[in-house]
Amino acid sequence: MSGWVMVAGLGPGDDALVTPQVMEALAEATDVVGYIPYVARVKPRQGLTLHPSDNRVELDRAGLALKMAAEGKRVVIVSSGDPGVFAMASALFEAVEANPAASDTDIRILPGITAMLAAAARAGAPLGHDFCAINLSDNLKPFTEVERRLRHAAQGGFAMAFYNPRSASRPYQFSRVLEILREECEPERLILFARAVSTPEERIHTVSLAEAQPEMADMRTVVIVGNELTRRVGKWVYTPRSVPA
Amino acid sequence: MSGWVMVAGLGPGDDALVTPQVMEALAEATDVVGYIPYVARVKPRQGLTLHPSDNRVELDRAGLALKMAAEGKRVVIVSSGDPGVFAMASALFEAVEANPAASDTDIRILPGITAMLAAAARAGAPLGHDFCAINLSDNLKPFTEVERRLRHAAQGGFAMAFYNPRSASRPYQFSRVLEILREECEPERLILFARAVSTPEERIHTVSLAEAQPEMADMRTVVIVGNELTRRVGKWVYTPRSVPA
Repeated sequence: MSGWVMVAGLGPGDDALVTPQVMEALAEATDVVGYIPYVARVKPRQGLTLHPSDNRVELDRAGLALKMAAEGKRVVIVSSGDPGVFAMASALFEAVEANPAASDTDIRILPGITAMLAAAARAGAPLGHDFCAINLSDNLKPFTEVERRLRHAAQGGFAMAFYNPRSASRPYQFSRVLEILREECEPERLILFARAVSTPEERIHTVSLAEAQPEMADMRTVVIVGNELTRRVGKWVYTPRSVPA
Repeated sequence: MSGWVMVAGLGPGDDALVTPQVMEALAEATDVVGYIPYVARVKPRQGLTLHPSDNRVELDRAGLALKMAAEGKRVVIVSSGDPGVFAMASALFEAVEANPAASDTDIRILPGITAMLAAAARAGAPLGHDFCAINLSDNLKPFTEVERRLRHAAQGGFAMAFYNPRSASRPYQFSRVLEILREECEPERLILFARAVSTPEERIHTVSLAEAQPEMADMRTVVIVGNELTRRVGKWVYTPRSVPA
C-alpha cells in the first residue's frame, strides 16, 4: 500500500469535538507524529507507532512525516485545533517546498475545531461578525508586524482572536498588546480570556479592556476582543450581525 | 424534563465533518429548526419534529426556538459550518436580548467546521498565518463598511476569507470588491474560489487576482485571498508561518 501524510486537527481538547474524518485517519495510520501533548491524546494500539516531539521543531517533524510516507507508511501529523490555523499544515508545505522530491506525496489536510471558535461558542457569539485571527508570537515575525496588524484590525472595526498571546519566554508582549488596544479602542470594549477550552481546566473570563491584565493570559489561552458593538446579554457575550449605517 | 436550545454547526456538508457533540444533540432533540437546506441534512426519526424555514427569517426562527424551549422542548437550531461565524448564534442572542423573559433559557452553542477552514484544508494552508473573515453581504451593514474593512485587511497584510460573496440579488458588489483588492494588492496575489466544499459539487479553483472574475463566485462559494507571501507548491496553495523582518 502506498504511503500518505494527513495533517489532522484534534480540536481544542474534548474528544466530542474530534470529527469522524479525523478518527478514521487515526484508525488507518501506521505512524502519528506531533507535539508531545497532542500525540498524548491519541490512543495507543498495536500497529501504530507514536512519534512525539518537542515544540519548535515543526520542520523536522514535517520532514520525518514525508520520509515515512515515502517508505510506504500512513502518517498522521496531529495538531491541536485546526491544522491550518497557526499549526502544522503550513509547516508541512514549507517542508515540501524545500524538498521537491516530496512534491508528489499523497497529502490531505483534515480540518478541526479551532480554539477561537470553540472559545467563542462557550462564551456566546463574540465572533458573530467580521473578525481577525492574529498570532501574537514574534518567534517567526517581527513584533512591529504584530503591532501593525493590531492597529489595522482595530481601526477596521474587526473583532479579534489572539493565538499564543503570552509565554514564559515572552511575558512582556501581551502588556504591549493591551497598551495598543487601549490606544485604539474604548475602555468598555469587552475582552475574553478563554483558557483550556473544552478540557477539565477550562476557564472563561470576560472583562472590559480597562480591567484587562497581562496575567490573565498564558500559552493555553485564546483571547477574543469584541468589536465596538459586542455586548453582554445575561451570562453571554455576543456581537450583533448588523452594523448600523 | 426542562427545555433547552442548542445551536449546532453541521460543518460544510460532509457528514464526516460533523462532530460527535452535534450528533448527540440531534439524537436528544425533540425539535430542529433552521434554514431549509440545513434542516434537510438532519435524518428524520420518530419523536423529532423538523421546522424548516426560509432564508432571512433568523430572528423569527430564534424566537420559535426560545418559545419551544420555554414549553419544555429540546430544540436544536442547525447552522451550516460553525454557528458563531455569520450564522445563527448571534441571531439567537439578539432574540434573547429583545425578550428578557428568555434570558434564563438553557442555551449551548456547539461549534462546527466553518467553510473557510474546510476550504483552506482542501486547498492546502492559505490561512496559515494571520487572517480576517469578512461577510461581504450588505443586507445588515452598509457596503461602505465592507470597503473600509477590506482596505484595512489588505493594508494590514492579512489573508482574507469572504463569506456570502455574491448573490442573485447583489451581483455587482463582488466586482467592486475585486476592484478594491486590485487597488490594494499586487496582480499576482493568489485568490481561491471554493464552492460547495466537501459535497459532491465541490469545486476549488485558484487564480491570480489579475485573472479573477466576479462570476467565479456565487452564494455557495467561500473566497480566500492570500497574503503577499501566499504561494503555490505543486497543486497546493499555502501561506508560510514566517514574516521576514
